[in-house]
Amino acid sequence: MDYQKILNEIYKEIKPFLGKGKVADYIPELAKANPKDFAMSLVTLDGDAYHIGLYQKRFSIQSISKVFTFTMALKMYSEKLYERVGVEPSGTPFNSLVQLEYEHGKPRNPFINAGALVVTDSLIGYYQDEFITLENILNFLRSISHTSDININPAVAKSEMDHGYRNRALANLIKDFGNLDNDPLTVVKTYSKQCAVEMNTWELATSMLFLANRGVDPIAKREYITPTQAKRVNAVMLMCGHYDASGEFAFHVGLPGKSGVGGGIVAVVPGKMGICVWSPPLNEYGNSYAGTIALELFTSKTGFSIF
Amino acid sequence: MDYQKILNEIYKEIKPFLGKGKVADYIPELAKANPKDFAMSLVTLDGDAYHIGLYQKRFSIQSISKVFTFTMALKMYSEKLYERVGVEPSGTPFNSLVQLEYEHGKPRNPFINAGALVVTDSLIGYYQDEFITLENILNFLRSISHTSDININPAVAKSEMDHGYRNRALANLIKDFGNLDNDPLTVVKTYSKQCAVEMNTWELATSMLFLANRGVDPIAKREYITPTQAKRVNAVMLMCGHYDASGEFAFHVGLPGKSGVGGGIVAVVPGKMGICVWSPPLNEYGNSYAGTIALELFTSKTGFSIF
Amino acid sequence: MDYQKILNEIYKEIKPFLGKGKVADYIPELAKANPKDFAMSLVTLDGDAYHIGLYQKRFSIQSISKVFTFTMALKMYSEKLYERVGVEPSGTPFNSLVQLEYEHGKPRNPFINAGALVVTDSLIGYYQDEFITLENILNFLRSISHTSDININPAVAKSEMDHGYRNRALANLIKDFGNLDNDPLTVVKTYSKQCAVEMNTWELATSMLFLANRGVDPIAKREYITPTQAKRVNAVMLMCGHYDASGEFAFHVGLPGKSGVGGGIVAVVPGKMGICVWSPPLNEYGNSYAGTIALELFTSKTGFSIF
Amino acid sequence: MDYQKILNEIYKEIKPFLGKGKVADYIPELAKANPKDFAMSLVTLDGDAYHIGLYQKRFSIQSISKVFTFTMALKMYSEKLYERVGVEPSGTPFNSLVQLEYEHGKPRNPFINAGALVVTDSLIGYYQDEFITLENILNFLRSISHTSDININPAVAKSEMDHGYRNRALANLIKDFGNLDNDPLTVVKTYSKQCAVEMNTWELATSMLFLANRGVDPIAKREYITPTQAKRVNAVMLMCGHYDASGEFAFHVGLPGKSGVGGGIVAVVPGKMGICVWSPPLNEYGNSYAGTIALELFTSKTGFSIF
Repeated sequence: MDYQKILNEIYKEIKPFLGKGKVADYIPELAKANPKDFAMSLVTLDGDAYHIGLYQKRFSIQSISKVFTFTMALKMYSEKLYERVGVEPSGTPFNSLVQLEYEHGKPRNPFINAGALVVTDSLIGYYQDEFITLENILNFLRSISHTSDININPAVAKSEMDHGYRNRALANLIKDFGNLDNDPLTVVKTYSKQCAVEMNTWELATSMLFLANRGVDPIAKREYITPTQAKRVNAVMLMCGHYDASGEFAFHVGLPGKSGVGGGIVAVVPGKMGICVWSPPLNEYGNSYAGTIALELFTSKTGFSIF
Repeated sequence: MDYQKILNEIYKEIKPFLGKGKVADYIPELAKANPKDFAMSLVTLDGDAYHIGLYQKRFSIQSISKVFTFTMALKMYSEKLYERVGVEPSGTPFNSLVQLEYEHGKPRNPFINAGALVVTDSLIGYYQDEFITLENILNFLRSISHTSDININPAVAKSEMDHGYRNRALANLIKDFGNLDNDPLTVVKTYSKQCAVEMNTWELATSMLFLANRGVDPIAKREYITPTQAKRVNAVMLMCGHYDASGEFAFHVGLPGKSGVGGGIVAVVPGKMGICVWSPPLNEYGNSYAGTIALELFTSKTGFSIF
Repeated sequence: MDYQKILNEIYKEIKPFLGKGKVADYIPELAKANPKDFAMSLVTLDGDAYHIGLYQKRFSIQSISKVFTFTMALKMYSEKLYERVGVEPSGTPFNSLVQLEYEHGKPRNPFINAGALVVTDSLIGYYQDEFITLENILNFLRSISHTSDININPAVAKSEMDHGYRNRALANLIKDFGNLDNDPLTVVKTYSKQCAVEMNTWELATSMLFLANRGVDPIAKREYITPTQAKRVNAVMLMCGHYDASGEFAFHVGLPGKSGVGGGIVAVVPGKMGICVWSPPLNEYGNSYAGTIALELFTSKTGFSIF
Repeated sequence: MDYQKILNEIYKEIKPFLGKGKVADYIPELAKANPKDFAMSLVTLDGDAYHIGLYQKRFSIQSISKVFTFTMALKMYSEKLYERVGVEPSGTPFNSLVQLEYEHGKPRNPFINAGALVVTDSLIGYYQDEFITLENILNFLRSISHTSDININPAVAKSEMDHGYRNRALANLIKDFGNLDNDPLTVVKTYSKQCAVEMNTWELATSMLFLANRGVDPIAKREYITPTQAKRVNAVMLMCGHYDASGEFAFHVGLPGKSGVGGGIVAVVPGKMGICVWSPPLNEYGNSYAGTIALELFTSKTGFSIF
């Protein structure tokens, strides 16, 4: 299959949709994004990369970081992680406290904010220090993306903390239920920083390869997690990766994927490739407007949907 | 692949699990089931059938019927159906009224009871008569199962009505929100009857073939729904087919499927086959205890999981 | 105190407010009310009556009937009634199913619809027949109002049933939780009829006398309930008598009272008198707009507030 | 009426109940209370005081402080305060986040924790400094209790902060909804300190006098709030003063009152006196077990119930 040709077609067909939707503005720093920016990268298991658009321009990965911290926690704690966070779809907006209260502080899955906070808390508990935790998250990202200079944008991290009252509410509530080991503020700070990491579509598509290859980075031949764990991450991405539009995404795109409010979406074609698309404006569900359409075009052109 | 050999292995390995779990007893008629009963059938796209256990013994299909009425409604109303019922996972127990109230009478998906009631209402609205509706549901089941004597068990239907206060509450609430065209009691009666249909695993596995084959019955060469619609039914089964354990089922089994409280589970291997397994006792989520394990064994032996 | 003079002042001051608000229209028959109609009656413990406006024109008592059925059930079942219905304020709109679901079918108080349905069910359980139950409700109303021709408006009762899907949902849900002894439809029909009773302000003010007089009708010298039970009815009226504006009513009016969507409000001045005011248009909380203001004027002119 | 004789009777009759219930232990410092401690004080409008038990032993006033901060805020902001906090009963446990989320950050009343946090925030906003705010709260307490050495117990305040994750969750959620002007942590700290004030029953009964006397301290002849504002505070105490047992308290005691988890309850007999009772063990609703019974005995012996 001629992936570059398919990408070029998508690049042409996506033009009318660029700029549609609404750039996230609840964090002032994110509101500065250029609504016309767009990029898409495919990286196959044998390392071939195909791109369109601004594939070297980094953006805020935001909730895409949840995939990586979940992977790290799964490796550390294995099945025991599920005592603290579930793997079922949520059915309520991504930041609701209601479900958390009714389920006594156990978040439904690691991709709602409450669940991501518990996952980050489990990492801090493992490393016993927030700085070392962040270093290890960054090192993991550098390793899977084959890029040594992945870093946090401090202005975005600060902006996130300055407006992150909802996350602080979540963390304190989880702490009250006894499902947080560390200080809630420390957890929220660490989480805000992991969300403020900046990467481009090439780096993120590369970072998906181990998930497309049963836990093993096919280029470096390094096993990050077991095949079963990789299957779990993919299953959770498919079921819960796009907030309250996960069912729609599963149907229209048909690939495990995860979106972030920075406008990025990563996806996995099991056994074949990692994908990342980026376009800052979001649709009504908080997922990249043009990015979702680009992925739909991709699976309908390639037939790579799992259904 | 030697499917009969795989089934025989499963038959041996499942023995220790038979009788575990709890037979549904909220409807007295269902409580009469023999907890040791078990059957499993595979039917491939070219019509070959493989079985273990009591594959000719019929049981109450219960919520599996939701797959068939959803299919019928999708054919009739196409995209317009989604104005009345969503396609997102639910995140609360299958019979909760809370979400329905907060979402103003629009059920989240067609496989929670509220959604199935709306779907049945849409069929009654189409046929303008409840008897003709039931006849058409039965005829559809006879057609896709290649069996002429599929029928309703009147004792189960009556038992269901005698204890179906929750469904009546749901139907009246949806009516109050204006999302039911017919009389709530008529809808609940029709729904109770569709749930009381009896089929065996052979018939149900055969009934899945059109969903495994992009909407077309591969034996009769008859198109029931479009490829896109078949993909939608499969996607909704994967996301929402097992109540509050849909995420677990997606991960462990990795196939679109739908369970019923009668102990049956149907599943689809896209492009390959229809499957049905049956064992009356249920696990804590209301899905067949041994049936879920049998399907897990099947996908781990065959590698047919979509992940 | 010259009550007639006070009423005459109120009659003058209330004029600018007549017609403000919105006549209930969820039942078509109620929507026919004249928005300019107004009446107010006081009846003292020694039987003196004072009126302004259309005090002989009957209107639909609607939820005011809940006070009377609660009284009857309290007499029959005494403290045991509280096992089935609470006496705490509700905190959610009067017809919400949410709280009922979270509290497993036990309504918070007898003045939300769910609670009133349980109370009516308890009466039907006592009399073992719905017709005899309605006869006894009517006879109780005839007795406490000293009026022999109190009756049900059949057109309103029918209109109520034709649009009472929410009440049917509530009754079926309560039945599902095991807190309804009779058939839900029978209970809703009986409840709809009790709401469709018609009385005028004179009759309703007279009907409050036993509650103002520790359970004893001061004119007929007949004890209906014990002093403690009368205190309970008054306490529940004060806490829960005006849906989600009970706190406001308690503060502004400062008297135990109960409103109905027909525009009537009854109130009790303990040890002194029964009151009824009527004006069909409702405020945003479902209580009579002008009626609430008239009662405020009354307590500020007389100083009869309990605070 | 011989108040001392009535108190002496109560002292005798309450003995069997002392020690029943459960001392609050969610804050370690409170768990140290002696479960057999008991005291009760009445102070009449002309300054006569009557006591039984340990009326000079101070205890943690906890939520009773909400009455005083609400009074202060009402004086400062008058009706505008109700734009930020309601006056309706809550209907859910005192610390639930659910209602707050559904009502977009506006607490239902000033006596649930969420509402008390908003009230304290309004005081900090007024004084523009948390230290000055606390000083003014203490000075107000010193003034109304006619006692110069009212102070905060720093160990209790610290213990409260160390375990106050639920309050931090509430404050951050309210901040997220835009209904908190100051830093959430500052508000929680200030609130924790106001709860850690220690007073005895004599001082607290004296502090109720201005509420029993239409806003004016009858001894010092000083007006703190208007008669209407005093009526509002009393109305809110009656409707919302005892968490989810406010209806029961209103019925059994029939006086405006407010409880705290330190085991104190204050109450007001309008036009007559202020009351305070104290006994550390709590009933299932979080109100003093023996204290509630003592107040019931008092109103049944005196007939002072408002019903």
